[in-house]
Amino acid sequence: MFKGIKVIGFDADDTLWVNETYFREAEAAFGNLLAPYETLNTIDQELFKIEIANLSMYGYGIKSFVLSMIETAVKLSNYGVDAGTVEKILELGKEMLSKPVELLPGVEKVLQELSPKYRLILLTKGDLLDQQRKLEKSNLFKYFHHIEVMTEKEEEDYSRVLNHLDIKPSEFLMVGNSLKSDIVPLINLKSNAIHVPFHTTWIHEQVTEEVKNNSTHTTVSQLEDILNLIP
Amino acid sequence: MFKGIKVIGFDADDTLWVNETYFREAEAAFGNLLAPYETLNTIDQELFKIEIANLSMYGYGIKSFVLSMIETAVKLSNYGVDAGTVEKILELGKEMLSKPVELLPGVEKVLQELSPKYRLILLTKGDLLDQQRKLEKSNLFKYFHHIEVMTEKEEEDYSRVLNHLDIKPSEFLMVGNSLKSDIVPLINLKSNAIHVPFHTTWIHEQVTEEVKNNSTHTTVSQLEDILNLIP
Repeated sequence: MFKGIKVIGFDADDTLWVNETYFREAEAAFGNLLAPYETLNTIDQELFKIEIANLSMYGYGIKSFVLSMIETAVKLSNYGVDAGTVEKILELGKEMLSKPVELLPGVEKVLQELSPKYRLILLTKGDLLDQQRKLEKSNLFKYFHHIEVMTEKEEEDYSRVLNHLDIKPSEFLMVGNSLKSDIVPLINLKSNAIHVPFHTTWIHEQVTEEVKNNSTHTTVSQLEDILNLIP
Repeated sequence: MFKGIKVIGFDADDTLWVNETYFREAEAAFGNLLAPYETLNTIDQELFKIEIANLSMYGYGIKSFVLSMIETAVKLSNYGVDAGTVEKILELGKEMLSKPVELLPGVEKVLQELSPKYRLILLTKGDLLDQQRKLEKSNLFKYFHHIEVMTEKEEEDYSRVLNHLDIKPSEFLMVGNSLKSDIVPLINLKSNAIHVPFHTTWIHEQVTEEVKNNSTHTTVSQLEDILNLIP
């Protein structure tokens, strides 16, 4: 189905290993910590608002998330939050940073099978140190020819990376769980993409039904299925 | 003096632009915030201890620094610190992240003069987003063939980068302000390095007098002087 592909790019978080689940768990724990001050719904909404407001300054990743949680706690408690709660928020972040890396089903098999036939690269957003740590823990480093930690994953960012690595869009295939970050920009660049949805998507990564329906991308239900689509 | 060089690597923080100064200023402001609880000396020492303890988990950069300041405030106040002070610490971080980029003397001239003759690369530690932001603000992007944001700058890290970029150690020259991170590892790799000291060095980047005296590196007092050392 996908012909003439020479390089395959993989997203990392929620494509190769579990990530979003840990954010959802931390948000639930954060909700409990702030329960004396607000409803869970308001806490969720306010945290999201503050994360988005801080995104251009803090970027993605766990440290940014922790700083936004602390800011939310100060605001929603109307300056009433105590130092013990602030410490517990810091600990939530440290727990997230020390999580083991939990590979998604089929990852090792897919990389093993594809790596002799294609140049595999890893294209991930997030915190550099955190992504390197996960890559080392995952033992997947050996499969990749190149790792690129990107601050954003928009059309121009992909363009720049493909250009820099001397890859033609038509010879490139991106595999990832986020329609917004891994699929739509590549389709727009007349490149190729396969969507492998993860059960949880951060609201910031969600696209409208219109974008979803207008995109001509391919979707598979699990990573292993991509092996049937690539010669 | 330096012959056969094909690629010149530049450190960024405190080599091309001011950085450490902003950390020192934030530490002074932090000391004032915690003055009700402890002496300035103890605050400084405890913050440094907590930063080092968090380094493997948080890495370098402003967000890590802010998280460590908050942890220090909780601890030194014996859980007495109020939410308003925590908010002020968050603000110190945001101020640091929005600082303009202040180029050091001679930077533009040096890069302009060297970039037609050598491949210039930027090798920096720190937070990916923050370094990209500074590079964009600085308008220096155009001079560099490649940017590498490294999580550490030890011998093996330089080895990996030089290898990956296909650069022979003998054809490489590193220029930077930190003996520990920019000079000693290169000398050990039988590569080349020029030390351009900055007036302030974070204690974690300092080396012993013994290392300093045993290293056969070249030191210049200002960046422009390197032009006299490279043909």
